[in-house]
Amino acid sequence: MQLICQNCGKRYADQELLYHCNHCQEPLEVGEVFVGSIRVGNPLRQNMMDRYSDFFPYLQKTAVCLQEGFTPLFKSSSFAQKLGIQEVLLKNETQNPTWSFKDRGTMVAMNYAIQKGFHQFGTVSTGNMAVSVAAYGAAAGKKTVILVGNDIAKEKLAPIAIYGAQVILVDGEYGNLYQESIRLGWKHGIYFINSDHPLRVEGYKTIAYEICEQTNFNPPDYMIVPTSSGGLLRGIEKGFAEFMAAGFIAKKPKLVCAQAAGCAPIVKAWENDAEKIVCWQNPQTEAHAIANPMPPSGNRVLQILRQEQGFAVAVAEDAILQTQKDLAQNGLFVQPASAVALAAAIKLVKEGLLPRQARIACVLTGSGLKYTSVLSKQQLSYQTCGIEKLEGLLKNL
Amino acid sequence: MQLICQNCGKRYADQELLYHCNHCQEPLEVGEVFVGSIRVGNPLRQNMMDRYSDFFPYLQKTAVCLQEGFTPLFKSSSFAQKLGIQEVLLKNETQNPTWSFKDRGTMVAMNYAIQKGFHQFGTVSTGNMAVSVAAYGAAAGKKTVILVGNDIAKEKLAPIAIYGAQVILVDGEYGNLYQESIRLGWKHGIYFINSDHPLRVEGYKTIAYEICEQTNFNPPDYMIVPTSSGGLLRGIEKGFAEFMAAGFIAKKPKLVCAQAAGCAPIVKAWENDAEKIVCWQNPQTEAHAIANPMPPSGNRVLQILRQEQGFAVAVAEDAILQTQKDLAQNGLFVQPASAVALAAAIKLVKEGLLPRQARIACVLTGSGLKYTSVLSKQQLSYQTCGIEKLEGLLKNL
Repeated sequence: MQLICQNCGKRYADQELLYHCNHCQEPLEVGEVFVGSIRVGNPLRQNMMDRYSDFFPYLQKTAVCLQEGFTPLFKSSSFAQKLGIQEVLLKNETQNPTWSFKDRGTMVAMNYAIQKGFHQFGTVSTGNMAVSVAAYGAAAGKKTVILVGNDIAKEKLAPIAIYGAQVILVDGEYGNLYQESIRLGWKHGIYFINSDHPLRVEGYKTIAYEICEQTNFNPPDYMIVPTSSGGLLRGIEKGFAEFMAAGFIAKKPKLVCAQAAGCAPIVKAWENDAEKIVCWQNPQTEAHAIANPMPPSGNRVLQILRQEQGFAVAVAEDAILQTQKDLAQNGLFVQPASAVALAAAIKLVKEGLLPRQARIACVLTGSGLKYTSVLSKQQLSYQTCGIEKLEGLLKNL
Repeated sequence: MQLICQNCGKRYADQELLYHCNHCQEPLEVGEVFVGSIRVGNPLRQNMMDRYSDFFPYLQKTAVCLQEGFTPLFKSSSFAQKLGIQEVLLKNETQNPTWSFKDRGTMVAMNYAIQKGFHQFGTVSTGNMAVSVAAYGAAAGKKTVILVGNDIAKEKLAPIAIYGAQVILVDGEYGNLYQESIRLGWKHGIYFINSDHPLRVEGYKTIAYEICEQTNFNPPDYMIVPTSSGGLLRGIEKGFAEFMAAGFIAKKPKLVCAQAAGCAPIVKAWENDAEKIVCWQNPQTEAHAIANPMPPSGNRVLQILRQEQGFAVAVAEDAILQTQKDLAQNGLFVQPASAVALAAAIKLVKEGLLPRQARIACVLTGSGLKYTSVLSKQQLSYQTCGIEKLEGLLKNL
């Protein structure tokens, strides 16, 4: 296995804790496009790595697994009708072991690191990734450290710490902390699995694989991805590329990078036709999980969108909250960041950028239970009555 | 399909909203023991009802499905070692669409009711079941009403109401509300899917089916079930009985009813060798999800335990919280009620009631995210530092 810079093409031999090209600072990616077979088995006795092992030849064995992946692809005729397009598919990543897509990447990166002899793990995150790394570290029986900014909402700490991870609140700027963690991890043998680590990105390939299988190898025309660091979109793109190289699909979906208007550095660069993103000043959105002002894979995402005839689109705060509510009212309660994908689709339809015959898939990245305090903004109402008055209410439901 | 009283044997023709025998007030159950084949398909394109349709011959089609079930069976060598027994299996129901086992029962009961022409649904619950019925009602595009006691913790309301269900806070005693909802539902055409509804119980059969498949048809010796109304334990028992009748397994696991010591009416009756449970006064436990003082299927559970050579066991509050923490520190963060099963296993081992060679399975009923305020009792700790001091902390992790 080798890492390759997707910008300058520089190749690196397998180096565990290298994220970015020394030369141009762009993200590294596992260089090979893997091809092989799907190893079909009993769904109930198989895990993702049994099924897709050909596409992860560098993983010799699965030392830690919480049975991530194999999540539903929910076909919503209700949203297809609402949007006036042919098909809306919702990849429900909330049914993962820690209730977000992060588990796929954590699993791949941690197993690789264990194979390389690491026994201490870490990440820099305040949300889904923190919980995921803490859980897999616990399951592997390894020491795990989670670095968070000192301004974190205190109620977010306990669901990380319960896994037994050491949680350190660090004063200082988030971007610096990201870089500093990698530097210190390298020095002290702590494997930091941050948001766009090349092997974390590899884990996200499996979302594309599963969508191919779930659509009977006729994937959607557009794949809409809530985008923070850019790692998820990169992984999904590689997954479709590999299944095309393997001859399983005839075409790849166009990729759409969806961001919240309150923190949309990639969309801004896209709209300005720039090659490089610029740090977003003063991020403000309820979609915390994707509020990254300076996405480390942002430039690479721009490159992919150009190559794959994709789009970048930002959605307003009220549209995010409305879509969160609409999704729940179709049975799927997701965190605000996850609603961004479908909200982006609605906007694209309005702007005439999605044709009527389009088939789209949105990634529902994480559970609504992750962040319930936002529900105070949803203007929900309740009724109260004595048991003797109940019949009156039920009669006129 | 017919309903049968498991106590007096009285049979009832298919009657949608009958829960209990008119004659002896004991719960009704779908009378037939179904046999058939497992319809194996691609795991990613199949749902539970595709696979197990032979065992639900009364469901003509699946009008609403959120792709519940097919949850992992996690084999914990760490807990097997800790308990000193052969095998500990953890059925992780937190990976369901609303992150609890309730979805299996909601799906079966709601589809049946839709087939019968109902278009309004309800339940009486403050927790997992409320969320599940609200979600499936939303997914089915049906009016849904959730009745809760007026003393509900207010933060529990929004994650129910977000699905669009009408939430009514009712003054009055919970047991009365349960009965009154069924009576009024019958009268006004609202299908109430309460905790031990015969078709909800049918849905829980699938947990047993999956465990059979996941153990290669060599199910565990003991199946430990957190028990509230008793519906979950009843369903699991029927599932194993059907797979035995179908010739898939040679023996059924012994069933263990696990309750919190702060609300243990079934355990108390079991220990007193009584045939009937008595209402538990002043329930006090953090395991809210199973704190039912007068379980409507309690007597039936006692009957099953006697027939199947099972046990009933209550666990202390500190053991519940400690086990919640231990599970998280193995990668699985569950609500306190879910920790009760493994805590019961630990107690049974200490008391010499589980042999060394025992293979056990515990049901992890719901996600830890359902009830995070309990984490304030877990004495979790955090560190704080400036970024310049970070290296000092990481060096000595």
